[in-house]
This record gives sequence, C-alpha cells and structure tokens, in this order.
Amino acid sequence: MYAIGERINGMFKSVAGAIRESNPGPIQELAKAQLEAGAQALDVNVGPSAEDPLVAMEWLVKAIREVTDAPLAIDTTKPDVMTKGLELAGPGSIINSTKGQQEQLDIFIPMAIEHDATVIALTIDENGIPRDANGRGEIALRVVAAAMEKGLDPSRVMIDAVILPVNVTQPTPGHVLETIRNIKVLSDPPPKTVLGLSNVSQGTTQRELINRTYLVMTLAAGLDAAIVDVLDKDLMDAMIAAELLMDRAVYADDFLKAYRASART
Amino acid sequence: MYAIGERINGMFKSVAGAIRESNPGPIQELAKAQLEAGAQALDVNVGPSAEDPLVAMEWLVKAIREVTDAPLAIDTTKPDVMTKGLELAGPGSIINSTKGQQEQLDIFIPMAIEHDATVIALTIDENGIPRDANGRGEIALRVVAAAMEKGLDPSRVMIDAVILPVNVTQPTPGHVLETIRNIKVLSDPPPKTVLGLSNVSQGTTQRELINRTYLVMTLAAGLDAAIVDVLDKDLMDAMIAAELLMDRAVYADDFLKAYRASART
Repeated sequence: MYAIGERINGMFKSVAGAIRESNPGPIQELAKAQLEAGAQALDVNVGPSAEDPLVAMEWLVKAIREVTDAPLAIDTTKPDVMTKGLELAGPGSIINSTKGQQEQLDIFIPMAIEHDATVIALTIDENGIPRDANGRGEIALRVVAAAMEKGLDPSRVMIDAVILPVNVTQPTPGHVLETIRNIKVLSDPPPKTVLGLSNVSQGTTQRELINRTYLVMTLAAGLDAAIVDVLDKDLMDAMIAAELLMDRAVYADDFLKAYRASART
Repeated sequence: MYAIGERINGMFKSVAGAIRESNPGPIQELAKAQLEAGAQALDVNVGPSAEDPLVAMEWLVKAIREVTDAPLAIDTTKPDVMTKGLELAGPGSIINSTKGQQEQLDIFIPMAIEHDATVIALTIDENGIPRDANGRGEIALRVVAAAMEKGLDPSRVMIDAVILPVNVTQPTPGHVLETIRNIKVLSDPPPKTVLGLSNVSQGTTQRELINRTYLVMTLAAGLDAAIVDVLDKDLMDAMIAAELLMDRAVYADDFLKAYRASART
C-alpha cells in the first residue's frame, strides 16, 4: 500500500508553531521520520490557523524540499495555494483534493495534467456526502469520465470514498469498503483508491485500534493508498502483515524489518 | 463473531499433563478463563498423546461440564470419540469436524441430527485441500447438498475453508476470503462459515500479529465463527473493533469493556 504520511499538518500544534515561527527544523524532522517509518509520500497542509495560506504553503514545501525529493500531497482546497505547492514540489506530486462537482473538476483535472500530478477526488459533490456505496460510485464514475474527457489517464486519479467517524455513522465503514471494491471495475485501467484513514476514529476512545483495524479491512478490499500516521508503529505493522496476507509482499521471517529497510530513503 | 476458544487441546503441554494425571483443575480454569475472555463455545481436543482418546474425551467433557454449560466443540476425527463427547456434552454441541467426502458426510451429518449438534465441515476431500476458492466452493456445495438431503438445515452446517500457513502458501489467505464470501450465496439459508484461525501463522515469527490481522480480514469478508485463542487480548480487541466497523455491534465509548461484560457467563 502506498502510504502517505499525514503528520505535516497545521492542525498539529507543533507544526502550526513551526510555520508561525518560520522554523524549518521540526518540519524537516517530521519529513525524515515519516519517510523512515515507511511513508512513500508526504501530505502537506498548512492548517486552519495559517495567516496567509499561500505564503505558508510556499515556505512549507521549500523547507521539506531541503531534505527530501519524496512526492508531496499538496493538501488544500484553494486553487492558488495548490498551484504554488505543485510548482515548488515538482512533477509527480499529488493534488489533495478536488470534490466531484463539475466546476471543481474543471479546475483540478487540467491542473493535474499541467503539473504532471495525480489528483485525489473525494466522493462529495454539491449534494454532500452520499449515503451509500452507490452514491459514492456515481460520483467516482463522473470523476473518471471527466478525467478521460480532459485527457488525464484514470490511473492518475485517486478516488477517496470519504470515511466518517464510526461513532457518528456505523454503516459508513461498510459502504466505503463496498465502494473500494466497486471502483476497481469502473474503467480499464481503473482509477486508484485512497482514503484519509484517521477520520474513521475521530472522537472515539480507541483511535489507534480502530484506525489499524479499518486499515486492514480496506487493504483487503483492494485499497491502493492511504493517508495515515506512519509514525504509529502498530498501524504500520498491521499494514505490513496485511500486505503479506493479501500476497502483495513476499514473506520472510524478518518481514517487518525488511519492509522498513526497503522504505528508508 | 462466534468465538470458539481453542485452548483445551492436548497439543498444549499443560492440558496433556492434566489429562494424563486426571487433574481437572487446570482444565476447569482454562474453561472459565476462556469464557470470561469472550468465548461463546469451547473446543475440546484430547491431543495426539492421549493413550485412550475415548477415555480421555469422556474425562475431559465431564471435567468441563462441572463448571460450565457453554456449548462444546468436540474436536476429533474418530466417530466413536465424537459420539461419546456429544452424549456427555449434550444438545447444542459442535462436531469438529467432518471432511467433504461422502463416506464421512454419511457418518457425521446423521450424527449432528441425532445429537442436535452443528457440524463443521472442512473443505477437504479424497483429493486433499483444493488449490483455489472454486475448489473449496465445490466441496462446500457438496456438503450443503448432503445436509439438505439428509434433513439437516444448512444453517447447522459450518464450512471451514481450511487456512494454511502464510509462509507456506501466500495465495491461500486470499482464496479463503473469496470462499467465505462465495459461501454466503450457496443456499438459502446459507451455511455458516468458521475458520481454525491460528493455522495461518504456524511457523511464522509474528504469530499474534498475523492472527489478528487475518481475523479482521475474515470478519470483514463475513466469517461467522472462528476457533481462536480468546486469551490473546490484542486478538479479541481487534475482533471487537472489527465488529463495530462492520456494524455488527453498537458503538459505545467503552465498547471493549461492554463486549467483555456481556460475554461473561
């Protein structure tokens, strides 16, 4: 599974503080620690408290690019902030994210083509988050059709079926699993699937247990990528074991070590 | 998920010792500890070293019946030992197990009817363990047909799709998940599904991690029951969290405690 590290996010106090003080050290440490823990890309989000999101994104991406060339997932809803992030991060970046309504697709799909990026599309549109797997599948289909029409290969689209906290809506985890399985037959090649995992446990008392349990389920359903806390060792152990069990990684007695050694950059 | 505790098995030294010395204490403690940990039934296996398996089974079941009325899964391949176990354990027991060839079904299905028991059928026949999900499904279908023909409701058949160690054959965990999903549409009502879980990790270096990761996958695929080490707390936590995420148990902030409290007999 393609693991996108979620920790460079202004929601976290230490990250917000580093941005405010223009102190690159903590950001760069977080970048390196996540890559060593198995992240293959890093999410970059300036958070809700940044005074000027454009300036903050510029500073953040530059700080990270001093220590790694790993792909970055530029995490913003603002097209200008996204463009700035993509320019500085370089080709192979990830747009995180567009929603499924046409006016957003008209902005972000051409942006993905222009910047040689992959685009994450949430299964949300003008009517909000669909109640079931069919509704999510319909939006995914619309996204894939729009990508094809504009000349973006579906394999460069990642559908995020939008998980909600399990203590708010218990049927949703099942709907999202169904959506992940259904998306695999939407097109040939199919789009990729991704999930912002941690939302499943928001507000619960057992966040790590719920996160890793659901990650195993989504991986077995065929999820390609996840935005996760790669510094959660138990989560990554579960992910690695799940890859073995789905025959996506070769068994070795030291498979946990072997995975991490191969992940180190 | 219906959890069948695997620990009363003569494979374990302490159990073999207690049987040899006719010392009921350790057996009765294991029975109580497993029920408190969430087991809804207890597997009972005299092990490979019992001098007279019939005598050993008789003694074991009597010892357990002194402390609990919980359903017992009589775990033997020998029809005479099975019959003795079922007689002493009483109605509602589980036959663990028959294979899928006709001559075995001709013995164990009538036995299930006679003793008001559920029968576990392994997807193994005279040709051995099938290589894929289709082969497993064919044997399951044969078992269900035999049950219907003899007058045993399919809901009293539990198909065990036979998991093998992941370090021996990595495609098998995927085949077994596919089998579990397929079996749900075999008949109406469908048979139940069960798995002797721990075999998936036999000979690996990370037995508990692999066990609990695979249990989550099988539960998401719809597995009804599993023969597991209920004394493995992390395994049971994963199982309980998986039930929440599949909307099979209601969320509460203290859901781990609540589950265990409800399990206590």
